Amino acid sequence: MNKQSPIRNEIPRVVRLNPSDNVVVATGRITVGAPIPGEGVATTAEIPSGHKIATRAIGQGDEIRKYGQIIGFASQPIAAGDHVHTHNCAMGDFARDYAFGAEARPTEFVPETERATFQGIVRHDGRVATRNYIGIVSTVNCSATVARMVAAHFTPERLAAYPNVDGVTAFVHGTGCGMADAGDGLETLQRTMWGYVRHANCAGVLLVGLGCEVNQIRFLMEAYQLDDESRFQHMTIQDWGGTRNAVEEGIRRVEAMLPAANAARREPVSAEHLSLALQCGGSDAYSGITANPALGAAADLLVRHGGTAILAETPEIYGAEHLLTRRAPDRRVGEKLIERIRWWEDYTARNGGDMNNNPSPGNKAGGLTTILEKSLGAAAKGGTTNLTGVYKYAEPVTAKGFVFMDSPGYDPASITGEVASGANIVCFTTGRGSVFGFKPAPSVKLATNTPMYERMADDMDVNCGEILTHGVGVDEMGRRIFDLLLDVASGRKSKSEELGFGDNEFTPWVIGATM
Amino acid sequence: MNKQSPIRNEIPRVVRLNPSDNVVVATGRITVGAPIPGEGVATTAEIPSGHKIATRAIGQGDEIRKYGQIIGFASQPIAAGDHVHTHNCAMGDFARDYAFGAEARPTEFVPETERATFQGIVRHDGRVATRNYIGIVSTVNCSATVARMVAAHFTPERLAAYPNVDGVTAFVHGTGCGMADAGDGLETLQRTMWGYVRHANCAGVLLVGLGCEVNQIRFLMEAYQLDDESRFQHMTIQDWGGTRNAVEEGIRRVEAMLPAANAARREPVSAEHLSLALQCGGSDAYSGITANPALGAAADLLVRHGGTAILAETPEIYGAEHLLTRRAPDRRVGEKLIERIRWWEDYTARNGGDMNNNPSPGNKAGGLTTILEKSLGAAAKGGTTNLTGVYKYAEPVTAKGFVFMDSPGYDPASITGEVASGANIVCFTTGRGSVFGFKPAPSVKLATNTPMYERMADDMDVNCGEILTHGVGVDEMGRRIFDLLLDVASGRKSKSEELGFGDNEFTPWVIGATM
Ligand SMILES: [Ca+2]
Ligand SMILES: [Ca+2]
Ligand SMILES: [Ca+2]
Ligand SMILES: [Ca+2]
Ligand SMILES: [Ca+2]
Repeated sequence: MNKQSPIRNEIPRVVRLNPSDNVVVATGRITVGAPIPGEGVATTAEIPSGHKIATRAIGQGDEIRKYGQIIGFASQPIAAGDHVHTHNCAMGDFARDYAFGAEARPTEFVPETERATFQGIVRHDGRVATRNYIGIVSTVNCSATVARMVAAHFTPERLAAYPNVDGVTAFVHGTGCGMADAGDGLETLQRTMWGYVRHANCAGVLLVGLGCEVNQIRFLMEAYQLDDESRFQHMTIQDWGGTRNAVEEGIRRVEAMLPAANAARREPVSAEHLSLALQCGGSDAYSGITANPALGAAADLLVRHGGTAILAETPEIYGAEHLLTRRAPDRRVGEKLIERIRWWEDYTARNGGDMNNNPSPGNKAGGLTTILEKSLGAAAKGGTTNLTGVYKYAEPVTAKGFVFMDSPGYDPASITGEVASGANIVCFTTGRGSVFGFKPAPSVKLATNTPMYERMADDMDVNCGEILTHGVGVDEMGRRIFDLLLDVASGRKSKSEELGFGDNEFTPWVIGATM
Repeated sequence: MNKQSPIRNEIPRVVRLNPSDNVVVATGRITVGAPIPGEGVATTAEIPSGHKIATRAIGQGDEIRKYGQIIGFASQPIAAGDHVHTHNCAMGDFARDYAFGAEARPTEFVPETERATFQGIVRHDGRVATRNYIGIVSTVNCSATVARMVAAHFTPERLAAYPNVDGVTAFVHGTGCGMADAGDGLETLQRTMWGYVRHANCAGVLLVGLGCEVNQIRFLMEAYQLDDESRFQHMTIQDWGGTRNAVEEGIRRVEAMLPAANAARREPVSAEHLSLALQCGGSDAYSGITANPALGAAADLLVRHGGTAILAETPEIYGAEHLLTRRAPDRRVGEKLIERIRWWEDYTARNGGDMNNNPSPGNKAGGLTTILEKSLGAAAKGGTTNLTGVYKYAEPVTAKGFVFMDSPGYDPASITGEVASGANIVCFTTGRGSVFGFKPAPSVKLATNTPMYERMADDMDVNCGEILTHGVGVDEMGRRIFDLLLDVASGRKSKSEELGFGDNEFTPWVIGATM
């Protein structure tokens, strides 16, 4: 167990992460004088695995680009074939200049008539769903069991008459009370609640409270001007006189929602209606050179087709926020990112931690030169297009294109926020092998390496390890991912859906003291 | 809905909370000159509902006792029948003097041969169980679904051959990664894990990790010198090559545990083996005069019979820690409580909150005079015996008698800690009507008022509202609770067990930033 067969790394020995890069990455040790296939250069030094090779001459002070983005500047002249690392590459003054919009470029949109399509479900307000659930959302742990009991009533047998309904699912969690009745903690939780209540993939939602919790349904309804309506119902256990009555009433209300939910039909819609949550977890040394950049290529394709790709996990981009502000044509978008970064510095400091994401000695031995490069290993999932929006955790994403949503790196908490923000499909890269699924959105899992993919084939949808082991280009892998996303959005089950994941992963970010 | 019928409060109009008290509490407005039944005094003023009446003369500077404990001192001479409130009762210098042990008294233990017994399950190490579960504990949210899948395999049909096993239950949660790899947060989580692994009510435990989480199984085993053994098994999903393999392996391991688990037999054991988690949630104006003091009377009985009663919910006793230090014969025990109080002041301050538990204007209008009295409304659950131990959250309780375990007031997080500390039965008072159950320990619920009890009779085990509506004495109600605890400990199902609660309430306290 836990043994990995060695990577077959004879050919190719390098990975090119973006056509505009002036470095490639060695995927195994390369001897001095070795010709680099496809690059027309030969190494001028021995190159350790994971380290960078210049593919053309780079003048002193010039940009060094990997993932199509700046990872540093030549601190001395670099020749084609040279080893590029801390001895000749540094950040310079980069970290002091947000340079809002400096790297923004016009997006090469695919003409509307040529855009990819998928079979989506168009809701009454024009939003598009990829799945068709009824959700039972608990406001507080104290109503979790009742929410589960209501959902458990709707067995496959009882739902057989509603073939267009994907399931009745409980979204329960450990928080909702014992918290301050104002401030970041409650606001974040309420945004999350509201994000599920309004999620396109929920044909109907029943919100179940205990009654006396801090996270009051009435505050939520006031904050978001929610009205009772057939597709949104709410109730408390205390109002209904206990468990049995509440469960019976909940079942009645869900039964009343089922016919309308079952009336949903899939129809061809533009890929612009896809909102893709980007995520990595259980990362390894291959994440940054296989699955993450391949997902970035897919994200670029999705953006060019008019869709939305949501990067998150603020601690993992820390120190490289300059890369994102440079991609923000709207200065206010970039400034909102910086405001979130400052919030995190305070959040971690007041909890006795810090946000240091600098490459460690081990990172450097593995070939990572600057904090920009390290953070890009995660941020590469977001591709290369303009940053069009920055959102708080669970805040509704309204922009199209590539956006950032603030969240922890912790997978279930981060994805809960992305889905609450409106993501209708999730793409999750993993090196160690995370098993994960997330209702009401389908999740597609990308393996960073072939041995793990082979070991966990039931769990993994795509083997991005083929970039190393089969010479598949990053762009080609990105196209495969994009195509699979369209299929899964159209109703094809992802691996984690086949296995039955998604009922235990709803994890609202808890901020602040539990009292 | 949410309407409460008026309390029938003609007779009796007062509640005596402890035989040694020199005040009683009016349970409805009482006119001037009214004789107080059983107390031999008449009111000298009109007494609002919830307010206190002196039952004998109290000299200036003398103690005023409610719940058998000091709630303040006479700031002027008080006559029998006087209204006792802020005009004639104050804390004085009380808050500056921990007076370790000043209120400690010899416990009137019931002779060993006369102690109450229950039908318990004696484990190989002499600890005694009240239930007989096999637990599947996830280390991290990322292994929650696999843990659930293993548990779900063991349907009632598959367990029919093991009639002495109460169930195979998953304990899953939202944390375990995205956290600092040292400090309060991880230590608290690991204590909680360890508390479940070793819990007497678990005949066997399978700990399931993903593999790459911060909350590593190996760290836990090193910290607690755990060995593999037949009743404790552990595995990770990554080691076993994904979901299907891990679930199959988990099922095999649980199957291997079942015969030994089924060999458990109940036998008569002393009540000293009961470890009772005390809790209140969804409190109301009656909590402090009905269910909490009645539970305190039951806790006193349990302690006199050699058992253990665990008070928790630090924010609710804040400002009244002096009451507890005075009950601590061992100064170090009292000092540990003060250390926890200081920790909480820091914890809430760094999260932008504070620990103020002073009576609000509304509390004062309702008859609460001092912070001591207010906090005693909650702490009354702990009765009147000596404080014999103070524990961190989820720290194993080793002392007999009345002890305190540090925790938030939030019910599921607090009870998770109490059960991890070793509690094998839970008693939960509620005024608004909390619905709650907690595997592997049975939970008994006490209603503070008759209207709620009648409205939620399926959920409530005991109606402590009878203290108000039927003139049942607090001591008598305490005896009823104690008898019921013995029955439930012996295997009688509590209301929440009949309803099927307990699979969604495991909520380890999350301390610190989620990264
Ligand atoms: Ca990550
Ligand atoms: Ca992550
Ligand atoms: Ca309470
Ligand atoms: Ca509580
Ligand atoms: Ca009995």
